[in-house]
Amino acid sequence: MTTTPIKSVDWEVFVAALVGVEVIVDAAQVAKLSQDYHTFSPILQRQLAGKVGDIVVRPATEAEVLQVAAVCAKYRVPVTVRGAGTGNYGQCVPLHGGVILDMSRMQRIPWIEAGIARLEAGVKLATLDKKARVSGWEIRMAPSTYRTATIGGFIAGGSGGIGSITYGQLRDRGNLLALKVVTIEDEPRVIELRGDDVQKVNHAWGVNGIIIELEIPLAPAYPWVEIIVTFDDFMTAARFGQALGNADGMVKKLITVFASPIPSYFTALRQYIPDKTHAAFLIVAESCLELLPGLIQEYNGKLTYQKSAQDVGKGVNLGEFTWNHTTLHTRSVDPSITYLQSLFPTDKSLQTVEHMFHHFGDEVMMHLEFIRVNGTVIPAALQLVRYTTEERLNEIMRYHEANGVFIANPHTYIIEDGGRKQMDPEQLKFKQMVDPYGLMNPGKIRALMTQ
Amino acid sequence: MTTTPIKSVDWEVFVAALVGVEVIVDAAQVAKLSQDYHTFSPILQRQLAGKVGDIVVRPATEAEVLQVAAVCAKYRVPVTVRGAGTGNYGQCVPLHGGVILDMSRMQRIPWIEAGIARLEAGVKLATLDKKARVSGWEIRMAPSTYRTATIGGFIAGGSGGIGSITYGQLRDRGNLLALKVVTIEDEPRVIELRGDDVQKVNHAWGVNGIIIELEIPLAPAYPWVEIIVTFDDFMTAARFGQALGNADGMVKKLITVFASPIPSYFTALRQYIPDKTHAAFLIVAESCLELLPGLIQEYNGKLTYQKSAQDVGKGVNLGEFTWNHTTLHTRSVDPSITYLQSLFPTDKSLQTVEHMFHHFGDEVMMHLEFIRVNGTVIPAALQLVRYTTEERLNEIMRYHEANGVFIANPHTYIIEDGGRKQMDPEQLKFKQMVDPYGLMNPGKIRALMTQ
Ligand SMILES: Cc1cc2nc3c(=O)[nH]c(=O)nc-3n(C[C@H](O)[C@H](O)[C@H](O)COP(=O)(O)OP(=O)(O)OC[C@H]3O[C@@H](n4cnc5c(N)ncnc54)[C@H](O)[C@@H]3O)c2cc1C
Ligand SMILES: Cc1cc2nc3c(=O)[nH]c(=O)nc-3n(C[C@H](O)[C@H](O)[C@H](O)COP(=O)(O)OP(=O)(O)OC[C@H]3O[C@@H](n4cnc5c(N)ncnc54)[C@H](O)[C@@H]3O)c2cc1C
Repeated sequence: MTTTPIKSVDWEVFVAALVGVEVIVDAAQVAKLSQDYHTFSPILQRQLAGKVGDIVVRPATEAEVLQVAAVCAKYRVPVTVRGAGTGNYGQCVPLHGGVILDMSRMQRIPWIEAGIARLEAGVKLATLDKKARVSGWEIRMAPSTYRTATIGGFIAGGSGGIGSITYGQLRDRGNLLALKVVTIEDEPRVIELRGDDVQKVNHAWGVNGIIIELEIPLAPAYPWVEIIVTFDDFMTAARFGQALGNADGMVKKLITVFASPIPSYFTALRQYIPDKTHAAFLIVAESCLELLPGLIQEYNGKLTYQKSAQDVGKGVNLGEFTWNHTTLHTRSVDPSITYLQSLFPTDKSLQTVEHMFHHFGDEVMMHLEFIRVNGTVIPAALQLVRYTTEERLNEIMRYHEANGVFIANPHTYIIEDGGRKQMDPEQLKFKQMVDPYGLMNPGKIRALMTQ
Repeated sequence: MTTTPIKSVDWEVFVAALVGVEVIVDAAQVAKLSQDYHTFSPILQRQLAGKVGDIVVRPATEAEVLQVAAVCAKYRVPVTVRGAGTGNYGQCVPLHGGVILDMSRMQRIPWIEAGIARLEAGVKLATLDKKARVSGWEIRMAPSTYRTATIGGFIAGGSGGIGSITYGQLRDRGNLLALKVVTIEDEPRVIELRGDDVQKVNHAWGVNGIIIELEIPLAPAYPWVEIIVTFDDFMTAARFGQALGNADGMVKKLITVFASPIPSYFTALRQYIPDKTHAAFLIVAESCLELLPGLIQEYNGKLTYQKSAQDVGKGVNLGEFTWNHTTLHTRSVDPSITYLQSLFPTDKSLQTVEHMFHHFGDEVMMHLEFIRVNGTVIPAALQLVRYTTEERLNEIMRYHEANGVFIANPHTYIIEDGGRKQMDPEQLKFKQMVDPYGLMNPGKIRALMTQ
């Protein structure tokens, strides 16, 4: 497998070979479609500045994807696959130019059955959700970007989100049923992976196959209620979140806990969150509604906002203040703030959370997202960091790790340096097979650099 | 509150006062309706032998229940409420004669909405399930007796069952939404308890109010598949069960693990479970089906039986070999066998299970039911015991407790000596209010004996 793609391409000849496929060559548009949301990280902002593709190609069918793949293989052109470009680690930013393969026109949904959907990679999560709801189902988990993000991009670049409190993360067995990928070879093939084999491509950042179609399990579409509860004390808020997470009889989709002053960055919600209070943002099934006041009372919380299931779609959407939307809203007020991604150790008493909360004070503002990990509810966190220097940022991350907190570093564009630490050998093997010329998203895998 | 009810009743006068309500006086029938399944316990069998009611009353409406309650209060007659009489602790057996109040004619289902049902106490669980499925819902959890058991009896006398792997137990906040009870007073009242107040009556064995109507949350009716997996090694089977329980992306309704020779007692299933092998009985959503082989392989299991969702209702029903049906089937072959009810400590490595398995060998045959407790999947167990003496049975239970296993002793008809250890003061307070003459299921509460 070659790791340094050939760079001298006659783009006119190249584009001519793509006859029938939509192509964008306008430099401003190409530059825009070479971006993603790595800008949340001051480190990545610097490292990826000026990285752009040469052209954007927008296939609409499997046949067109095969055509593009063949042409890219022939001319040894790097390929950066792109969904909606909402990824946070520069996964979509081409390090070596080439083709930006925009999958967002592939929007067919072949079928939705009881509990399973088959859909093309470019389908927006919100579109699937709307369609599935007609028959009583919805997506199991979604990033807070679900209005724009594509399912292909979520599987290839995301990890979990709203819904992970019940179903765990995308990597968990059962949350992805099948994948159809196109290879980049002289004669590109279509390969369908099913069952455990999906792990060969799951969360692989578009390095080993162009995902064109997927099968994912669905969740029942409960009538959901959105709720804000405020607390005078942060640890009480956190313990409330853990207790609700542990309450097996209560069906939930989101348990987010913010330390003050994070909620003060949410302009649209200020009326519901008094200054200096800490807040829990919840999405729970309507059937829990009568039971929630008892739990809130146990933790001295105050319910300040409630949007009923019938009003979903109206007014603010609470989910769009959670997960990395928290960082988005905060940065829109104070762009010097950046964030961490972490997973606290299994410990229902939340000692490590408490320690970090006090240890860093205002420099690292606590933002917990409770999720299920290996059968147990624990807090993930996307802490907001008042950024000073790269050294200090690294120091903060090392301190967390030294105290048993797992850090998925969001300030790197190298797969292994982020959440995963080591490239799955199966994924590398699969890459060798489907991308023999090493054209897919080159420069993102450490294991291939040291070869 | 009186605790010793008045015993001399002129039954002719009494029955006359019940004009319009169905009454059974035939001694054979009354004796039959004074029984439950306490016979699984040699201890209870002896203690409760010969205990029968005087008459059976079968109201069909709220008005009739109020009428019965008033008459019982007037004549100070003990009342033993009864659903289907499938309880295991003699909860339905009258210690002081009196009226057996059979609720099984109260079968209305006022409404089923998205995720919630309201129903009368005498509705059979299977009936509710069938009706809810029409709109895509089903009961969250059910005892293996769901074909005959009533919802009133399940709430008043049960704990959980098939479905508890996902939703925990009946006592967990959120699994019961509202209760309507009739008091036994000179002028009986109807009281509706909602939200956390339901705990005043939840699992109270019919000592503090006649439940006439309930509101319970429903679960989505996935297409379910029934599966048997066999293993050469018991602990590998147990670890497989734990791993499947921890797999957040796999939707399940049942994970039961049997040590050999338990499966050999299931005559109808012998062809699927080779001699000397251990078995896992599973009910999982169809959408997990492709992922299961990978997990089974990791644990060297062998899938020997699979019934697809379309075939549910045909052939054997796997659920009816689990929970206390395991004991039923085993006792039908060897009536000298009895059982335990226990909850292993939270420990995903299952060390205590392993210790007990080896410690007791064939005397205590391991039967695990994985359930969620406070947000974590742990094995409950209904171990089968080769009974010798009461002393040895107690010794076995004490040994478990000494090793951190929680025992809900099924060999006692005293509430506090079973699973609950102490009577909830709120339940006692509520009893004082709704049963001022102490007529309801007298003799089952230790706290009232020592008064
Ligand atoms: C405000 C904000 C909030 C966010 N919240 C969350 C969150 O809650 N949870 C979460 O997991 N993420 C979150 N993210 C990250 C991101 O939005 C999601 O992961 C999203 O699902 C990515 O989808 P996309 O279509 O934008 O993918 P893109 O960013 O376009 O692509 C992501 C990766 O997938 C690859 N890829 C895309 N399509 C394909 C394909 N068809 N075949 C092969 N590879 C492909 C790309 O090459 C890239 O490596 C957030 C980001 C932002 C900016
Ligand atoms: C083979 C077998 C398997 C079993 N499996 C399970 C299991 O998996 N899980 C489980 O939890 N249980 C199990 N049980 C126990 C029992 O079957 C269930 O708890 C069942 O739900 C009881 O319902 P029932 O209608 O038979 O109640 P009954 O036995 O009639 O009554 C149970 C208790 O509730 C009270 N009660 C009944 N109706 C009312 C009412 N309307 N108002 C007030 N009090 C009332 C009674 O006085 C009694 O104390 C099993 C029993 C057997 C024999």
